[in-house]
Formats: sequence, structure tokens, C-alpha cells
Amino acid sequence: MRILNVGMFGLGNVGSGVARILNSNREIIEGRLGAGLRITRALVRDTGKPRDPATREIQFTTRIEDILEDPSIPVVVEVMGGVEPAHEFVSRAIRAGKHVVTANKSLLAAHGEEIFALADDADVDVYFEAAVGGAVPIIRTLREAMSSDRVSSLYGIMNGTSNFILSRMEAQKTSFESALAEAQRLGFAEPDPSMDIDGNDVAQKLSILTNLGFGANIPERNIYVEGIRSISLDDFRYGDEFGYTIRLLGIARQKAGRLDVRVHPVFVHKEHLLASVDGELNAFFVVCDAQGPSMLYGRGAGAMPTGSAIVADLIDVARNVMADSPARLSARQLWGRAHASPPQMDMGALECRYYLRFQVEDRSGVLGSIASVFGERGISLSDVIQRDRSSSQGNAVQVIFMTHESHEHKVQAALKIINAQEYVRGPAQVIRIEPELSAP
Amino acid sequence: MRILNVGMFGLGNVGSGVARILNSNREIIEGRLGAGLRITRALVRDTGKPRDPATREIQFTTRIEDILEDPSIPVVVEVMGGVEPAHEFVSRAIRAGKHVVTANKSLLAAHGEEIFALADDADVDVYFEAAVGGAVPIIRTLREAMSSDRVSSLYGIMNGTSNFILSRMEAQKTSFESALAEAQRLGFAEPDPSMDIDGNDVAQKLSILTNLGFGANIPERNIYVEGIRSISLDDFRYGDEFGYTIRLLGIARQKAGRLDVRVHPVFVHKEHLLASVDGELNAFFVVCDAQGPSMLYGRGAGAMPTGSAIVADLIDVARNVMADSPARLSARQLWGRAHASPPQMDMGALECRYYLRFQVEDRSGVLGSIASVFGERGISLSDVIQRDRSSSQGNAVQVIFMTHESHEHKVQAALKIINAQEYVRGPAQVIRIEPELSAP
Repeated sequence: MRILNVGMFGLGNVGSGVARILNSNREIIEGRLGAGLRITRALVRDTGKPRDPATREIQFTTRIEDILEDPSIPVVVEVMGGVEPAHEFVSRAIRAGKHVVTANKSLLAAHGEEIFALADDADVDVYFEAAVGGAVPIIRTLREAMSSDRVSSLYGIMNGTSNFILSRMEAQKTSFESALAEAQRLGFAEPDPSMDIDGNDVAQKLSILTNLGFGANIPERNIYVEGIRSISLDDFRYGDEFGYTIRLLGIARQKAGRLDVRVHPVFVHKEHLLASVDGELNAFFVVCDAQGPSMLYGRGAGAMPTGSAIVADLIDVARNVMADSPARLSARQLWGRAHASPPQMDMGALECRYYLRFQVEDRSGVLGSIASVFGERGISLSDVIQRDRSSSQGNAVQVIFMTHESHEHKVQAALKIINAQEYVRGPAQVIRIEPELSAP
Repeated sequence: MRILNVGMFGLGNVGSGVARILNSNREIIEGRLGAGLRITRALVRDTGKPRDPATREIQFTTRIEDILEDPSIPVVVEVMGGVEPAHEFVSRAIRAGKHVVTANKSLLAAHGEEIFALADDADVDVYFEAAVGGAVPIIRTLREAMSSDRVSSLYGIMNGTSNFILSRMEAQKTSFESALAEAQRLGFAEPDPSMDIDGNDVAQKLSILTNLGFGANIPERNIYVEGIRSISLDDFRYGDEFGYTIRLLGIARQKAGRLDVRVHPVFVHKEHLLASVDGELNAFFVVCDAQGPSMLYGRGAGAMPTGSAIVADLIDVARNVMADSPARLSARQLWGRAHASPPQMDMGALECRYYLRFQVEDRSGVLGSIASVFGERGISLSDVIQRDRSSSQGNAVQVIFMTHESHEHKVQAALKIINAQEYVRGPAQVIRIEPELSAP
């Protein structure tokens, strides 16, 4: 049987998962592929470090040339993470004619266009299923199952850390801080959790998905991002009164000839499928013209789920190599920038319903004063709540406003004025309500 | 731009969906494929019948030779349905060197092995995403995203008619008969609904999935099948007391070195994702060793969702043709019989918890008599319910038994004895509880 040798860039947690899967599923993979996959060399920082027993037969090196100049290695797996030196190493591998499988969302979000242009020149494959959604096959599904269809909207729970924290807050009625601490204890959150809880991880993944789903290349810096640090238990309580829970979503949708792309917490109807996605799991709710609504759900992180997605990509590359059709899909098809895309929508043009929570001084006239700022700007209110609550501190009280469909730019203009009033304690918490997710 | 001509076998509802999608998404498809797809000829029974405007440029014929002998047509879409003459026509197309995309589950369940052997000889592609789950990409996901992994279990809601009826019974507290009538009125059920509500449609689809998921070819006739005709509102009411709802599932799972394959109604925990799948939608809950649990959800039927899956397959075939690698995947890889599979488990060897509802004469000693039959066979009971209910008719009453984990063969032996007692009115309703679906 033919054996395809695999080189590794990095061999940490996920890389060891790849090695374990290739070992334990060897028979099944060889049956399905009609060939074997063997990791022969791995580029690592420290060749002497103790490693997983599954990596026993791998030759370790600190010199990238040992892989790039080895003609018996047609494909490289990059699991180093981070932008540099992954960017340099992947570029060199492509130039050396190696196919690449990468799990590196930061690399693709930053340099995807350049990498796929290189791949086109070199006629090699670059696969990246594991870069978004771990084991959830969102990349493949957009590239293949939805290749026939127009994607009208995509809503993704694509950060397991944030989803763990939000669903823990809801289920256990616990604060953001203690849910975060629990996530850190269980290994679902990094010691510095900023990338996850501030939404940047989601923005990078969303930037990748806009290519395949919408033919657009929206860089991370052009994506509006809000994280979940300021979500409080009160937001869950008030949301519950309207039938909503809270999820941090990456959103991309076509609206009036524009592409609306953003990351922020959203009120999702409790009976909507996305509301059932609990803990560290990921899910993508996609609406297409012909297919209608669909959802993919599964493990978005972890050595074995991510490793499994990488090995599935390796099998795809190997199938191409064996059929003598590497670059069966052009780099533009792999990356998804193959059809015309609408221009990006300005965030201010967003129209939706808003939930706005203010912490204000408990004195007469405050509620009316806020309401009149909305009124003057043509923002129509559907619900106003002010209640004595145990969470009120000192002579502060919470007031909640729900708006009818309003423009983001008007709401932001109103908030700017209201947040500046001396009776307001800290900026308002904003949670948007997505029309497509506001009913089962 | 290169144009690939497509021939159609059949041009009914789904075929017209294919034509509509090729028309309305032409630009997007050509961008993604780098080529065009045009339906040039269609084999139909009546060339004079009025048709969808999207089919205007198609040449209709009643002679299959007009397609088979047209060298400008590399690929044929079969949407005739039924086993014959689809079997004959598809076989002839393959022998004539045409690639085939089919939506025909009955054909593949009956003759899959033979068709893929033919395809191997002729070096052509046969794709069939639309045969199972409509727009839900379960075939692709098993073939590609899970190619690296061992599938341990698969649970599918794969008949929209049955799922519509069950979720309607639950939501509206309506009888089976009136939910079926509503499904027929709305076009979700055929005038003769047997294939759908008796589970045979699910068994055919499950037979196809066992190939890709487990490397096994389990013919429909070897699959244990129960439908939903005898499910009553009482079953929903009692299930609710234990936190369960009812779904008709196709199940395939590896258990103790055997492959356990069956179709029947199942009690599913209300907080499990599969319980949220309502109406005519389909969903597949799959557990793999490395990936863990995952779910795919979407529209399982209808001209546009099914048409979209067919066009995605056409794009895959066209990508192979354009890369000059037709039969990039061997027929065994496409069909999935490429790795060793465990032998099938005997239904009698199943072990699970059972819900058993009896309609019995309302007199003393009956409950004890039934319980003692279970006791004698070593079937341990967890719950027994007997209640005065409005649903009791005449002097009949319902008694419910929930068992601990028991063997199917013991339960069936006990039921045979109990159902034969003069105090029992009609056979017991059995609903099994799947361990993997009995908690969120």
C-alpha cells in the first residue's frame, strides 16, 4: 500500500491529537483512503521534550529545511498557532511545493489572501477545516454542500469559552467573574482570556467564513466587535422576561445589497435551536435561498476534535494527490473568493430591536429624561422596565428599554447623550435582537 | 467559459427545482465552479406537459438513447424515483460512461452494491447526497469530515412526515389521525402515507448510511422496523412525566463488536438537541470517537432543498471532470464500503430501558399478573403507573411499566405471554429509551 508522509510544523496539544488519531484509526483510514498516512518529521522548538507515545516514530528537528527539503514529504500540517513564524513557515512550505493543512485562524485571517495566491502559483492544496469550528465541518459545508446555493445569513456560536461562560451564568445564576474563573479551572479559558471573551477570536473566524460564504474578504479590523465582559446576570433575568437567552454570535448576512458583518452578544429566543447550544460547544445556523435554514453543531476545540478535522483534511489532500489532481480546486475555490460579493454594510446602517440597560440615580425625572432622548431621535420604545431589585446599589437603580426596529446610528447617538448625563452610572449595556433568531 | 451539459432522467417537482436553482444561481455557481452547468436534455414520459418556465431551453425526449448517445453530455441527474425503471436507466447511463447524480434512496437501498460495482468498471462518479436528508449534508459529512474518525453511533430524524406528525401531536395535543390528516392537507404526507409512517423510508435511508458510516451493507430487509401508527397522545403524556418526547429514529451504532441497526419510535430527553427538531425537519446526531457528539439539521425534503443538494453534487462531479479526475474517489469510497465492518447485532440482543403501555380490563389482579410475568423473566421494573384517566374506555384502563435495562428477547417473550391474556385489549405499545439520548 502507498504511504504518504506527513511533516508537522509544531507538535503540541493538537499535533499530538493528530498523531494519536493516525495511530488509533490507522486501519479505518487506510481502508477509506486506499493509502497510509505517516507523520515522519516534526519541526519543534525543543527536540528533547517528553512527548505523547503516539509520536514515538517521528523524527524531531529544529530546522525547517529538514522538512522542506525532504522530497518524500508531500504535505505539511501547521499547528504552531499565532501569526509569526507560522506565516513565514507556511509560505516557505508552499513555495517548496508542499500541500498544507492548517488549523491556524489567526494566520488565515491576517494573510489568507496572500497564502492562497502563493498556493495558486505553486499548484498546491491548502486546507483549513480545523481553523473554524474545530470538528464542525462548516468550511466543507460552505465550500461543497452550499456551493449550489446563495447564503443569505450565517450566525455562529464559534467561541467555546464565551459560550461556556454565558450558559454557565444562565444555568447556575452565577456572575460573569465566577463563570470565567470556572472556565479557567476547567481549561476552557486561557489565563489571559481576552481573545475569547472580547470577541476577537470570533472576528478572525468570521473573517475566514465571509470568504467561503459570501465571496467577500472582510479583514478582522473591519468587523464591528463587542465581547461579553459587561454582560450581567440581570441581562439574563430581563431577557428571560421576553423569552430570550444570550449568545455571543459571529454574524454575516446579506441585507439590501450589502454584507452585514459583526460580532456581539445577541438575545436569542429560548426555543431557537441556537439557544440549546450549551457549554463549550459550537454551532452554525445558516440560511440559504434554496436549502432554507440549517444548523451544524459539535465540538469546536480540543486536541481530538481539532485533530480529527485536520486528519480529514489530510485525507482530502491525499485523495487529490492519489488521483493526480492536486489543486483540483483552485486556491480561490478553496478560499472562497470565487464569486462577486456585495460591499460591506456600515455598522450604523444596521436596523434591529435593542435592549438597553442603564444603571441610573434613583430619583424622579430620570426615566422620563432618558425616554425623551430616544423620542427626539425617532427611536420608538416597545417596553420600559424599572423595578426595585436587590441588585440596585446605594441609590442607583436599573432601567431597561426595549426599542422597536431602530437604526444603529440613531441608537448610538442617543446613547452618547444619555451616557454623558450626570445621573447615569457607567455606559449602557446594549444587546441586539436578531429578527431571524427572535422566534423558534 | 467551459459549459458542462447535464441530462435529466425525470423532470417532476425535484427536477424543476434543479432547473430553477441552475437558473437563479447561475452567476454564483459559475464563479465558484469556473464553468457553467446547463440542462440540455430531459427524459420524460410526456413531452407535451406544461412545465416550469425554468425548463424552457431543455429538449424533452421519451427516448433514453437521445441522452445516452449524446457525447456532449458527461453527467446525468436521476430524479425519477422508484426502483424500476430508474435501476435500468442508471445502469445504462453508467455503462455509457456518464457520471450520475441521483436522489433515489429506494434505488440505492435495493441496488447500491451493483450500481457502484458498475461505476468502478466504468470509471464514473455516482453522487447521491440528496438521497438521504435532502439538503442536510450527512452523506458528505460521513464521507469527508468523518473520514478520519470512527463513528460509534448515528441517530437520525430522517422522515419529515413522521416528525411533522409527532411534533404536531405533542404541540397541539391532537391525535395521530388528525395530525396525519393535517400533514396530508399541507402536502407533507402522501395520500398513502405507509412508506413514511411505517418506517420503511427511514430503513432505506439507514441502509445507505450504514455503508458510509460503518462500512457495512445492511439491506433494508435486515433492519428491524416499527412505525408510528400506534403512538397515542397518552404516550406523549406519560413520556412527559419522565422528561421525554417521542421521535421516530433510524439508529446505527457499534456495540460490543456488533453493529446495531434499527428503526422505531424512541423516548428522547426533552433537553436533548434531537427533541428540539420539530415539524418536517431532519436531523442527524452522530457520535465519533475523536470528534465527540455532533448534529446536522435542516430541510430533508422539498423541491428546492433537494434540488440544491443535487446541484452541489453536480458541482462536485464537474470539479472532478474539470480537474481531469473523474472517479477521484473510487466507487467503494463514494459508497463507503471501504473498511471492514462489524457483523450485525441480532435485535434480540438489544439492551435498553423500555416503556410499555397496556390497555387492560379494569379489575383486581391484572397489574400483579403482568408484573409477575416480567418478574419471572428477570425483567426489573423501575416504574409502574395505573391511573383513572378520561382516556380509559368502558371498563378498560391503561397501565404503564418502565423497565430497567433489559434484553429485547426477554421483553418480547414476556410481551408474547402478556398480550395473549384475556384481560389485555390489543398489543402493548413499546417505546425504547436510548441511553445516549436520555439526558441533555
